[in-house]
This record gives sequence, C-alpha cells and structure tokens, in this order.
Amino acid sequence: MQATAELQVIPIGSGVSVRSEVKQVVNMLSEFNLTLETHASGTNIEGELDIILAATTKVHEFLHQSGVVRIVSYLKLETRTDKIPTLSGKRL
Amino acid sequence: MQATAELQVIPIGSGVSVRSEVKQVVNMLSEFNLTLETHASGTNIEGELDIILAATTKVHEFLHQSGVVRIVSYLKLETRTDKIPTLSGKRL
Amino acid sequence: MQATAELQVIPIGSGVSVRSEVKQVVNMLSEFNLTLETHASGTNIEGELDIILAATTKVHEFLHQSGVVRIVSYLKLETRTDKIPTLSGKRL
Amino acid sequence: MQATAELQVIPIGSGVSVRSEVKQVVNMLSEFNLTLETHASGTNIEGELDIILAATTKVHEFLHQSGVVRIVSYLKLETRTDKIPTLSGKRL
Repeated sequence: MQATAELQVIPIGSGVSVRSEVKQVVNMLSEFNLTLETHASGTNIEGELDIILAATTKVHEFLHQSGVVRIVSYLKLETRTDKIPTLSGKRL
Repeated sequence: MQATAELQVIPIGSGVSVRSEVKQVVNMLSEFNLTLETHASGTNIEGELDIILAATTKVHEFLHQSGVVRIVSYLKLETRTDKIPTLSGKRL
Repeated sequence: MQATAELQVIPIGSGVSVRSEVKQVVNMLSEFNLTLETHASGTNIEGELDIILAATTKVHEFLHQSGVVRIVSYLKLETRTDKIPTLSGKRL
Repeated sequence: MQATAELQVIPIGSGVSVRSEVKQVVNMLSEFNLTLETHASGTNIEGELDIILAATTKVHEFLHQSGVVRIVSYLKLETRTDKIPTLSGKRL
C-alpha cells in the first residue's frame, strides 16, 4: 500500500541543538527506497507504507546506538484508495 | 524494542461524525498484544514497536476495506534506553 | 468559539527527564478557565479557543523564564458548528 | 516572542478532496505579517507567536463561515531563548 508521510524526530536530553541527529536521520532515510522532501519542520515521505515504517524503526534503533537516550518521533501517515497518494499530488 | 505511542486516526470524507470508524480502530487495536488507554483525543499504546507499527498498518487496511477512501493517522512514538518505557511511567 | 484541544509540550536540551517541566505546565494550565484531562501523552483541553491559545503562550513564556532554552509544543485544535465540542462528547 | 510553527488544517466531513479549503487557508495566512513556506504536508510559519495564534483562530472562523462543519488543526510551535528562531535556521 503506497502512502505519503511526514516524519519529525526529536532527540530528548541531547542538548539544545539537534542538528547533527536530524542530519543522521535524513541520511538514514535516504538509504531506503523512498521519495524524500526535507523541509524546516520535518521530512515528507512518499513510498510503500511497510518501507516507511521499517525506516522509522531503523531511525530509532540507529539513534539509540549513537547514544541518544530518548527519542520522540511524530509520524503522520496518509493513505487513500481513490488514487495513488503522492507528495506532488499534495502540493498546491 | 518496547515503545509508548499515541495514535489518532482521522477518516477524511466519511462525514462529520467519525465515531463508528474510531470504535472500529480501537476494536482492531485490542486484538494485538498491546496495552491501550483510550482518551478523548486518541489512544495511548504501550508495547513492542514492531507490533505497534503492524497494528497501525492493519488499521489503515481495515478501514479502507470498510469503505473509507482517505485516512490520515498521527502516530507519536517514544523509545528510550535508560529504562523500559511504559504508559504508567509517563503519568504525572 | 469553544474548542477541544490536546497539548503536549517538550522541553529540548533540559535532560532526559522532563517530568518537572510537564508538572509545571499542568499547574499553569489549571489556572485558566479550562477543563483539563491529563493523560500519558499530553493534556486534553476543553474551553474557549482564545483561552486555550493564551494558556499555550503563557506556558512557553513561563518555561523560558524558568530556564528552559528551547520548547516544542504540539497543539491539536478542534472546532465544529453542528454542536458544542466537549471532551466528554469525544469519548467512546 | 518570535516563533516558528507548522500548521496543518483538516476539514472533516467536507469530502475526500480538501484542496480548495487548504488553498483558502494559505490565502488567509498570507494576509498576516508572517513568513510562510507551504509544503506537501502543511505550512511552515515564522513570526510573532501572537500573530501565528491569531491567524490560526481566523482560519477556523473563516472555514466555518465558508460552511465547513468540523475542523481539526495541528499546530506545532517552537520557541527558544538562545537565538531568534527562523525557518531558514531550521533547514539542513
């Protein structure tokens, strides 16, 4: 099932700047077969729902292995049956 | 990896009341090996991250099979390595 | 305009445990003329939209004055014209 | 207090396509003294917190006046005291 999504990952307790962790997340996401659009407030994603969820799991695992103690991620998922959901179809 | 989560599912284009769809979602979630706490704005979840994500996928699949054309779900995921995350540990 | 809402506040860079900050947020919200239901993943709110937004502003101001350098808050707002939105009306 | 924000507005019960409502929201936001960056999953905003919250209220009021019965909006707010928060500062 194809989906569009938005993912924002927040490391808690890692200091005020989380830029390096966010860069790691985007690098990690780019290894999956997903279309990514990074913006100032998260990353928009298009692809198979299973892959989006597997990538999200990997992000948590990887950041914990990198030493991040606590992670909150916000994942917005959108699916529809009337047409294939795409990021380009959601732009105005 | 154990996680705590909050899931809110919004059927779009199914009418102003989404109560019956939300009830179906909670019924479906209760079939998984997860601790659930339903509140006025979503369902809090505790359990294995893999199961939480599998349940979320099932919810989308099931609602589409029930005729819902478009679904947006908001999934907040929290993991930590300093202790096992639980819903009871997050209450004040 | 009456609204229902859910507010979650995350102090960033304040350490792994954010319990004391969250308690301060709930204490502060309770000073406003709002109905509150705290749960494991945030606080559900019912009341006038203006008051909800004023309370959210106060929370940011107060936490910054308490020394929190960076704050992300997630505010879900719901309004409807067919009936008065209430938290009790949103429970299953 | 300057803030960065992300706003997503979902009309419920208005049909499967919500494109025209979303366009109205962006048009309305552009009348305020705010920096806007629209993307596939919402609108990123930079400006005074008071103006962001006033604009959000206007969006709800306006959509209801246009006939939308039920609205859920997701507003992510970010403030910090170590530097002025900007959208450009949040890009990778």
